[in-house]
Amino acid sequence: MGAAADGVCDIAVVGGGGAGLTAAIYGARARRRTIVFERLVTGGQIATTGLVENYPGFPEGVNGTDFVIALVRQAERFGAELRYEEARAIRRLPDGAFRVETDEGVVRAHAVIATAGAAYDKLGVPGEAEFTGRGVSYCATCDAAFFRDEEMVVVGGGDAAFDEALFCTRYASRVTLVHRRETFRASALLQERAFANPRIAIRRNAVVERIAGGETVERAELRDTATGEAFTLPAAAVFIFIGQTPNSHLLKGLVELDEGGHARVDLRMRTEMPGLFVAGDLRMDAARQLVSACGDGATAALSAEAWLAAAGIGEG
Amino acid sequence: MGAAADGVCDIAVVGGGGAGLTAAIYGARARRRTIVFERLVTGGQIATTGLVENYPGFPEGVNGTDFVIALVRQAERFGAELRYEEARAIRRLPDGAFRVETDEGVVRAHAVIATAGAAYDKLGVPGEAEFTGRGVSYCATCDAAFFRDEEMVVVGGGDAAFDEALFCTRYASRVTLVHRRETFRASALLQERAFANPRIAIRRNAVVERIAGGETVERAELRDTATGEAFTLPAAAVFIFIGQTPNSHLLKGLVELDEGGHARVDLRMRTEMPGLFVAGDLRMDAARQLVSACGDGATAALSAEAWLAAAGIGEG
Repeated sequence: MGAAADGVCDIAVVGGGGAGLTAAIYGARARRRTIVFERLVTGGQIATTGLVENYPGFPEGVNGTDFVIALVRQAERFGAELRYEEARAIRRLPDGAFRVETDEGVVRAHAVIATAGAAYDKLGVPGEAEFTGRGVSYCATCDAAFFRDEEMVVVGGGDAAFDEALFCTRYASRVTLVHRRETFRASALLQERAFANPRIAIRRNAVVERIAGGETVERAELRDTATGEAFTLPAAAVFIFIGQTPNSHLLKGLVELDEGGHARVDLRMRTEMPGLFVAGDLRMDAARQLVSACGDGATAALSAEAWLAAAGIGEG
Repeated sequence: MGAAADGVCDIAVVGGGGAGLTAAIYGARARRRTIVFERLVTGGQIATTGLVENYPGFPEGVNGTDFVIALVRQAERFGAELRYEEARAIRRLPDGAFRVETDEGVVRAHAVIATAGAAYDKLGVPGEAEFTGRGVSYCATCDAAFFRDEEMVVVGGGDAAFDEALFCTRYASRVTLVHRRETFRASALLQERAFANPRIAIRRNAVVERIAGGETVERAELRDTATGEAFTLPAAAVFIFIGQTPNSHLLKGLVELDEGGHARVDLRMRTEMPGLFVAGDLRMDAARQLVSACGDGATAALSAEAWLAAAGIGEG
């Protein structure tokens, strides 16, 4: 409580995923009063992930929940404060500080690190939520390796869907790319590569109506929108790439967003507004990997520290 | 051996520190033939680090050596090959592939991820090497927290020295900034902040001649270059910020370097040469933190994978 009793802090971190919690570790370890605001549960996307195999340092992989608990403990150990409040607005004050408004109060911060992440767009069909983490995934890079020599379905028609379908062929016995339209938004080059790949089948004008199985995914039930016919694809995994929505509404009017709604940053995670930093999936050109988000968080915190030091805040 | 018997691979990673080993984890897990070339010992700067407190996921900290062993195991588990060879040249071939020449042979690679890191410049005085990791450090962000309420010496006269001296005041009982000249290269703003800080003392025209102590550092022995007089500063830690030399000689002529010799990259760790990526302390504007280097490595590997897929290498 101490750090926040007066509603003032050095660094406000908005979002308690990998990027946010790492920023908090660094901010607090630099002895900056650091508050993390998280609306739901800490950990972001990782909290709902089973085994993470590609986070460096855990050769046998690490369970998503265990990792989040460790991160929270690490941040709190250095003195960061976690508040389960929803940040509703970030405002720049005339004196250069920021005002973070939550559903429960207001905090004044000298620097803000926004790490609110992004949400993968959902199909909204039966089985999708139930099987997430058990065959339904929004990241082939993360999860295709768990389904070696199995059949996979990839849903979408843009670059991400084609990229990930090509990636899946490195593991799958067969990949079916399903798209609801006749034509694709993906680049011509990626389309060519996919069409030429003997392990990729293409189903146009088809929609997934249900994802079904037992303990894990076993099949996708689809409908051909041209003929109205129902059909089934056996699949151990369904990868959904129909879009991604960054949680950037808090940043609107403060910093420049790219066409996808991600914040523009430089290599040090600085936005064009001094004192405001963005890390993780909320920033442009993010790799969307846990370790990259954490790396961003550390970088953003060092930039925040440099900004606070240059502004003469908390010295002496 | 399998991957490399023919001297051909998909991804050659030059440098086996945090960035390189993470790139190898990602490259190999994408089922790309991935070879890591490391001249000395894997782990880079981490290999010589005692406790790492700020790498996310280890609330009690992790020993540098243990971490490196885990990383190597993780990369090898997915099929990456480590070769203890010194990369001596990277050449672009007319067909767009790369030729990596080492002290023991030649490998053809479709993509190269350079992660050869940077070396901190040394004072070259007695005690410096012996006490590295036991009071002598080149990173206050990493290590100042281990010396709470102790006296510290910071050596240097540039932005880094002033930045880190200001950072040290968050932990130190007293910081003495020692510089061999009368004037400082650091920005006027940073100088002002340091001069105004009651916890920072400034010693101009002074050189460290020896770092001494028992188990850990106890004092720095100096000489005033104006008067010739010897004097001693009690110190539990000596932080040295007299420069940093990126290991970028292999990149000369291939990619653009900034004035400090670091490679120019974009947010996806791409250089302006297609197929050549740079991650970690070798790239411009690096945060010089383990987790950031690892995050870079993952990002670079995803970019390499995208490049290989777009080039149609290894599909089908």
